[in-house]
Amino acid sequence: MGDGEENAGEGGVMAEIAIRDAAHHEGNSATIRGWLYHHRSGGKIIFLVLRDGTGLMQAIVLRNAVPPDVFRQAKELTQESSLEVTGIIRRVPEGKTAPGGVEMEVTDLKTIQRVPAERPFPISPKEHGIEFLLDQRHLWLRSSRQHAILKVRHEVIAATRNFFDQRGFTLVDTPIFTPAACEGTTTLFEVPYFDEKAYLTQSGQLYNEAAAAAFGKVYSFGPTFRAEKSKTRRHLTEFWMVEPEVGHATLEDILVLAEDLISEILSRVLGNCSSHLATLNREMEPLRGIAPPFPRLTYDEAVSILKSKGSDIEWGSDLGGADETLLAGQFDRPVVVHRYPSEAKAFYMEPDPHRPEVALSADVLAPEGYGEIIGGGQRATSLEFLCQRIREHGLPSEAFEWYLDLRRYGNFPHSGFGMGIERVVAWICGLEHVREAIPFPRTIYRLTP
Amino acid sequence: MGDGEENAGEGGVMAEIAIRDAAHHEGNSATIRGWLYHHRSGGKIIFLVLRDGTGLMQAIVLRNAVPPDVFRQAKELTQESSLEVTGIIRRVPEGKTAPGGVEMEVTDLKTIQRVPAERPFPISPKEHGIEFLLDQRHLWLRSSRQHAILKVRHEVIAATRNFFDQRGFTLVDTPIFTPAACEGTTTLFEVPYFDEKAYLTQSGQLYNEAAAAAFGKVYSFGPTFRAEKSKTRRHLTEFWMVEPEVGHATLEDILVLAEDLISEILSRVLGNCSSHLATLNREMEPLRGIAPPFPRLTYDEAVSILKSKGSDIEWGSDLGGADETLLAGQFDRPVVVHRYPSEAKAFYMEPDPHRPEVALSADVLAPEGYGEIIGGGQRATSLEFLCQRIREHGLPSEAFEWYLDLRRYGNFPHSGFGMGIERVVAWICGLEHVREAIPFPRTIYRLTP
Repeated sequence: MGDGEENAGEGGVMAEIAIRDAAHHEGNSATIRGWLYHHRSGGKIIFLVLRDGTGLMQAIVLRNAVPPDVFRQAKELTQESSLEVTGIIRRVPEGKTAPGGVEMEVTDLKTIQRVPAERPFPISPKEHGIEFLLDQRHLWLRSSRQHAILKVRHEVIAATRNFFDQRGFTLVDTPIFTPAACEGTTTLFEVPYFDEKAYLTQSGQLYNEAAAAAFGKVYSFGPTFRAEKSKTRRHLTEFWMVEPEVGHATLEDILVLAEDLISEILSRVLGNCSSHLATLNREMEPLRGIAPPFPRLTYDEAVSILKSKGSDIEWGSDLGGADETLLAGQFDRPVVVHRYPSEAKAFYMEPDPHRPEVALSADVLAPEGYGEIIGGGQRATSLEFLCQRIREHGLPSEAFEWYLDLRRYGNFPHSGFGMGIERVVAWICGLEHVREAIPFPRTIYRLTP
Repeated sequence: MGDGEENAGEGGVMAEIAIRDAAHHEGNSATIRGWLYHHRSGGKIIFLVLRDGTGLMQAIVLRNAVPPDVFRQAKELTQESSLEVTGIIRRVPEGKTAPGGVEMEVTDLKTIQRVPAERPFPISPKEHGIEFLLDQRHLWLRSSRQHAILKVRHEVIAATRNFFDQRGFTLVDTPIFTPAACEGTTTLFEVPYFDEKAYLTQSGQLYNEAAAAAFGKVYSFGPTFRAEKSKTRRHLTEFWMVEPEVGHATLEDILVLAEDLISEILSRVLGNCSSHLATLNREMEPLRGIAPPFPRLTYDEAVSILKSKGSDIEWGSDLGGADETLLAGQFDRPVVVHRYPSEAKAFYMEPDPHRPEVALSADVLAPEGYGEIIGGGQRATSLEFLCQRIREHGLPSEAFEWYLDLRRYGNFPHSGFGMGIERVVAWICGLEHVREAIPFPRTIYRLTP
């Protein structure tokens, strides 16, 4: 490394580095391959902001310091042109700020592709409408805001997987093609499957229950699908969900698991992604203070709070999005609502033995109005009860025979939950809409790019 | 822990442990919750083999050591009954072998659910046909062989994710619903999508290329779909694939990446799953010796080896499954076949500049007859060339406009590959068929359970 500087500009072998690591190369010559993010040009000096996927860095081209051809190239560079830039990494002078604290004094520059000025990169620093940006999603990903969101998503997913792996859970990839629905067919995508028809999974839960009998503690993590006709800021037709299922766990056990999971995710994101949250102008204080235990309300308590705040909710119905926002707004951390009316929930919920009209179910609502991020509960163990519920829900009982086998052969108490990744990312990043929390969002009106 | 023994049998609070950790509790009383795997009963002694998802352990019930009711319960236990067993963990006497080296001397036993003898667990230790076992997949997962395979799968996936995360790759979940096919429509699943139609993804590659321009190095990891009508031991309609894409990488760069990935997976599986490989009677020597570099053959060399071995392959066509088996059988480690004829490969492959009729593409074939586990290459950068190839392949060009934008705006060289998880698991576990390498396999004739 030490002799990099001497060779600079003479075609010597340069260290190729990532912008993220540039500060470690201070005083040395280095090469960065990337794209032009911003460009500002004076008579004798050109300021380039480079991006390479790992960060942004300013590179300064001085007319006196480079061959005339390099200066001309630099002057004519257009937004998102791809290039290779070599120069000396320097600490940014006091009083100026720069990402990473370093900048580059350019000695050489090679244009890989110049975006023609007559057909410029479609996304300029000016404001664009959301539909336009979604049409350009393949290019929009390059903007620093979208980059930051998806880096947080990466961290959320890595934290989640590590959390379960370290606690002895076995990953079980549940099927995407399923022969029947677990919560009714109105929001199912149906797929012609050779001579049959299949449905795209809405949840891996029933399969996780089978796997929990084989492995004790399992989790699935994959895409799930809802043919969601409502266009809300919390819904996608395709979204990723992690679903743990734990043998011998009670509702209380999995609520503790959910609290620990959320705390672990927040701790990793705050530790590793603070620069990304800063890019998003996300206030970090509301996230920093969050620690278990989370406040817990029964559904009954939730309904009476909501009524006192003006909601027209009636006992028996599920909480709507507006109710969730109203309720979660009362707390500075996620809030647990438990023991929903059985009639509002799926067929497989265990009734509370002390009060059979409510189920041993719970949702976790994120603060700041983000609403439900986790839903789960204790699974019913009684074969007779499940058969009756399947009939009451009008579900095709033969499709559930395999599931009922889990109660015939080695029946055991177990509980689990599902957590929607995009909703967690939207909350942590402070996004208006979940569509920015996934690389290529799919909604009722959006199947491209 | 120390007073556990004294309390045994008197209803004191017992340590609840996992079988995997039983050896750490030697000499103490402990409780295990699980299922009855095997049962052998004499007049005064009953041998129970318990499973709890983390392992198997023998528990011994002596008529003299337990209340009469416990002995009777133990005697009447049926396969896969769920139960809670308490007893003293003892080192297995010299000369006897047992998993983990310990067994339990039972002091108490509680049956959670007894599988009725008149409707016994359907999978007995006797031989069953494969279709029967697949029909019972939700129960078959409990057998020690299937358990071992899916534990190896877990490790393969964890190793793969760690490998990419530690090397600075960003995870990008590419969409499942896609508006068009990247390799033709004959093996696509079509889904009615509100008023449009969508196709289930066959590969995240094109989206990864967009993401590589935003993040530099990315990988997708998710389910992919092929409406595969051929029934072979290497095909599923739904399978999981990891696909890295690397900005500025050449074919050679990603072959080194593939070698490192495979080596890392093998090292983690051999380190953490040796007991599971032993359960599968998998010879470990052939896996232990595998280290980069892997032998490399040009497609031309591969064809002439195959012809000399009696294959009727003609230059220009892709390698068939039998060809792959024949070729891979010549080597003791994975073999790379590179520079396939362009006409045999997808439209986006970069032609070899020295020989444009072949593409800068490569497959990695696993040894022992397992065939292709990785396919990839360098992506074409020329906009004109790609437009021409899209026309030649009869693909709808408007559906690829967004992809072509990647060549219009900051075009850059990049390469990547896809690795099929089930094929890697089948190879490492030594399986005849990939259907055992996924929890709930889907094939042309199989959509259940």
